[in-house]
Amino acid sequence: MKRTFLFFLLIPVIFISCEQTFVPGDPLPSWNDGDTKQSIINYVEKVSDKNSDSYIEPVDRIATFDNDGTLWTEQPTYFQFYFVVDRLRKLAEMNPDIANDTLVRALLDQGHEAIFTFSGEGITRVIVMASTGMNTDEYADIVEEWISTTKHPETGMYFTDMIYQPMLELLQYLRDNEFKTFIVSGGGIEFMRPWTMETYGIPTHQVIGSTMAIEWEMTDDGPVLNRMPEMSFFNDKTNKPIAINRCIGKKPVFAAGNSDGDLAMLQWSYSNALPSFQLYVHHTDAEREWAYDRDSHIGRLDKGLDVAAENGWTVVDMKSDWKVIWPEE
Amino acid sequence: MKRTFLFFLLIPVIFISCEQTFVPGDPLPSWNDGDTKQSIINYVEKVSDKNSDSYIEPVDRIATFDNDGTLWTEQPTYFQFYFVVDRLRKLAEMNPDIANDTLVRALLDQGHEAIFTFSGEGITRVIVMASTGMNTDEYADIVEEWISTTKHPETGMYFTDMIYQPMLELLQYLRDNEFKTFIVSGGGIEFMRPWTMETYGIPTHQVIGSTMAIEWEMTDDGPVLNRMPEMSFFNDKTNKPIAINRCIGKKPVFAAGNSDGDLAMLQWSYSNALPSFQLYVHHTDAEREWAYDRDSHIGRLDKGLDVAAENGWTVVDMKSDWKVIWPEE
Repeated sequence: MKRTFLFFLLIPVIFISCEQTFVPGDPLPSWNDGDTKQSIINYVEKVSDKNSDSYIEPVDRIATFDNDGTLWTEQPTYFQFYFVVDRLRKLAEMNPDIANDTLVRALLDQGHEAIFTFSGEGITRVIVMASTGMNTDEYADIVEEWISTTKHPETGMYFTDMIYQPMLELLQYLRDNEFKTFIVSGGGIEFMRPWTMETYGIPTHQVIGSTMAIEWEMTDDGPVLNRMPEMSFFNDKTNKPIAINRCIGKKPVFAAGNSDGDLAMLQWSYSNALPSFQLYVHHTDAEREWAYDRDSHIGRLDKGLDVAAENGWTVVDMKSDWKVIWPEE
Repeated sequence: MKRTFLFFLLIPVIFISCEQTFVPGDPLPSWNDGDTKQSIINYVEKVSDKNSDSYIEPVDRIATFDNDGTLWTEQPTYFQFYFVVDRLRKLAEMNPDIANDTLVRALLDQGHEAIFTFSGEGITRVIVMASTGMNTDEYADIVEEWISTTKHPETGMYFTDMIYQPMLELLQYLRDNEFKTFIVSGGGIEFMRPWTMETYGIPTHQVIGSTMAIEWEMTDDGPVLNRMPEMSFFNDKTNKPIAINRCIGKKPVFAAGNSDGDLAMLQWSYSNALPSFQLYVHHTDAEREWAYDRDSHIGRLDKGLDVAAENGWTVVDMKSDWKVIWPEE
């Protein structure tokens, strides 16, 4: 009797225990069984195994993820462009200079697709117009309000619900095995930070993105950081490894992306002297999401597909590898 | 008999347990009892107590520390300047252009003090000359070799032994209470990262500093990041909050510095809507370390002392508050 009692006392001690480093059952339940899923699990298991030749110290387990098209959908256009157009519509109501701007007129009259007729400078100009001229706290409030109230025009879903359930599981699986997960996105760093913790479990200091020029001002109410009308860093292509070097200071051992804009990041990871893993999400599912690659004007994956094949990187075939796309299905 | 046996079975389960969030005994043994030590403990206890009005969620427990003069000594000059002079001496042996440079000649002939006769541009120029023209891996190797073999000219100690034992305890005490500890230093980011983990327990992605321009190059042996001859960001004064915003994305609740160069960082932290703590290390101990403040050309603490008094920030009197300075004593 007393022996049984003590045994039951033990149970909560064993099960409440510590950080979750052991995941019972399948760590990637939304991934279909097959080579892709198995390659991920094989990699994580061997680098976490102290008795393996491939063992990696936890401090070196750095994993970097692109966001648009890798963690959430990016079609028919980058979600941040919807924010930009919505914000320009609001600004145009109050400011005739903005209302009469040629590019703003094109966006408001023809819709977000008009942006694909702009030059690179034109795209930067409308993003800057929509995203600067306030301090960092004010901008965070604007983003939070927008992302919590606005729905995707085609799916009617909140943007933060159009995240990939299989990738959420991958992020968690890596963290359960003592990887640090970072976002390394071309999106605005302060556009992402208000919601990445709740959405992906990624804290602000592990989010890297494009930045506007920032200026300090001491006001009567204390200091503020003002967002100035100039993009200071566009975090795409070879700028991704440069930002990884600046903000993380270590080469990732695990890198995931979905476009040629992520190629340099994957190559940087692939050059790691430690065992590394590169993953491309290939959008092949026109029914459940979108199908696009070599010819897309959003998330073009062309050279990246060739380099992935040459190097033996893992390419996710969304249609066959993923049981579900978004969490709500 | 069986009851006793099961009781002993329980003991390791209870004591091995989880992350260390409870520190038995004195968390700051190298700090003398008094107002300074008590103010730190009071703050950490109240913000970690879920039942306190001052409770702060762990995700918001961001602590930022200056390095030179706050975590390690900075006299008679910044330790990185010794590195710069040693490196220029080596480069001058191989490169007559460098050997004949006026500023380099002044440093090599007159010693490191000559740097105080240089303009800001001159100082930047010799730092750039010594610290660029190689890739990031090569630079890390150079720093590691130097820091593990070179001794301070006056104390004969390794530079990484001239770190403040009381501040090491403070860093650990904060981490034990789920704070994330960051370095935010005017020093070179890649000059610090090779040794901050071993020395302070701070991983590379929590080290922020000054940066050189970096360029990606794809070589036959894979990609490298080259350190270009241009300083791209000097992480001092109001640039510290700007870098904190870019790299951490949250206002610190705890900020520690020792000079006017840290004032904006402390003011930024002080403007946090959450309960916050600001700490200045005041160098008052000419016998055990160095004594300097308002008139020093290194680590000048002038306006900062006034603002600290106005705002009621905690000022460490090194002589009376610290039992020991460096770990080896």
